Amino acid sequence: MRVLHHLPLSPYARKVRLVLAEKRLPYELRVEKTWERRTEYLEMNPAGTVPTLVEDNGLIIPDSAVICEYLDEAYADSSLMGRTIAERIEVRRLIAWFDGKFAAEVTSNLYGEKYLRRLTGRGIPDPAAIRTGYTALRYHLEYLGWLAETRKWLAGHALSVADFAAAAHLSTLDFIGEVDWTISPAVKDWYARMKSRPSFRGILADRVPGTTPPAHYADLDF
Amino acid sequence: MRVLHHLPLSPYARKVRLVLAEKRLPYELRVEKTWERRTEYLEMNPAGTVPTLVEDNGLIIPDSAVICEYLDEAYADSSLMGRTIAERIEVRRLIAWFDGKFAAEVTSNLYGEKYLRRLTGRGIPDPAAIRTGYTALRYHLEYLGWLAETRKWLAGHALSVADFAAAAHLSTLDFIGEVDWTISPAVKDWYARMKSRPSFRGILADRVPGTTPPAHYADLDF
Repeated sequence: MRVLHHLPLSPYARKVRLVLAEKRLPYELRVEKTWERRTEYLEMNPAGTVPTLVEDNGLIIPDSAVICEYLDEAYADSSLMGRTIAERIEVRRLIAWFDGKFAAEVTSNLYGEKYLRRLTGRGIPDPAAIRTGYTALRYHLEYLGWLAETRKWLAGHALSVADFAAAAHLSTLDFIGEVDWTISPAVKDWYARMKSRPSFRGILADRVPGTTPPAHYADLDF
Repeated sequence: MRVLHHLPLSPYARKVRLVLAEKRLPYELRVEKTWERRTEYLEMNPAGTVPTLVEDNGLIIPDSAVICEYLDEAYADSSLMGRTIAERIEVRRLIAWFDGKFAAEVTSNLYGEKYLRRLTGRGIPDPAAIRTGYTALRYHLEYLGWLAETRKWLAGHALSVADFAAAAHLSTLDFIGEVDWTISPAVKDWYARMKSRPSFRGILADRVPGTTPPAHYADLDF
């Protein structure tokens, strides 16, 4: 059975879980406590990050961006990376936006400071980083809202990995109660459509020790 | 004429310049002072980073990873992303390694602190970051040395974007005199082979105001 090494709240692992489910590729989840830096895991993925995907045939694919490109090439009949050259540019631009800029400005300042820091025993949260995170989240929700208002899906007329990248970050932030869904009705509408997809069920069912998600987290009519 | 918006010492722009030259795609360079945040540039690339590629037909491609994927799809006859599924995974893993981990641990601590900070008027370099950068550079050169010793090119038997990603970062660090080439003879050999390629000439000819590269920078027998 295909194995995905992950952490339940990792937005990068969540993006891959969504893509696997969307492509109807069965897999088994295995939690990897990356901060323990297990030798066997570092041999598979020297960067020591989650997720890492291990295929039935033994092929090891580290890094969520590498995994998504791989899955789209290996299981090409249901492409989620765009069809035309221009669509593929926009899908990849937005994935880089959410996994690069949004991650650095929002996710690492909120999820990183308020959750990961405690989980991995790296001291107390930095209030300045958290303030920066809230400011950036508002700005990013406005940009996301503009995308959601002017397009059917974030990268254009087709659902793509860009939607799953964005939804993965928001779902992680929503789990720890950090998303104010009143900021952008267009974002809320788009996220409600994402949440209703069968591929999202696993993520909505996630539970982790020590943190209870808000009641609306798994509610499709939030 | 195809235009690449860049900064001469940006490792991300250098990677794309190398790939364009390797694929014999002519282009014109235009310097973009990203810290000025020009509206016209942000409209092309909301992330505000370099490089951004503008094709003759008007197609705008931001982000060096997106550009490299695009170039390999649009000009597929000379693939630099690997041929088999396994090769493509390894090429992309190493690009993510150098542009993610190496960039964060080495390039941003040395080039970022010692050069970019002054250039963009963001105060004085942080000595702790610079120390971290030197320690990480040694560790990364050892890993790079292991790759160079055990493989013909970094990702395997074929030259790939992984080589250009790594060489781009090292060339930027070498320009500001930060690479100790005695640490790994295998890395030096590999870099000498990279430097000798015609695609490298533009990068070796770069000059920027206020910084003179060491004498060995453009020397093929360094």
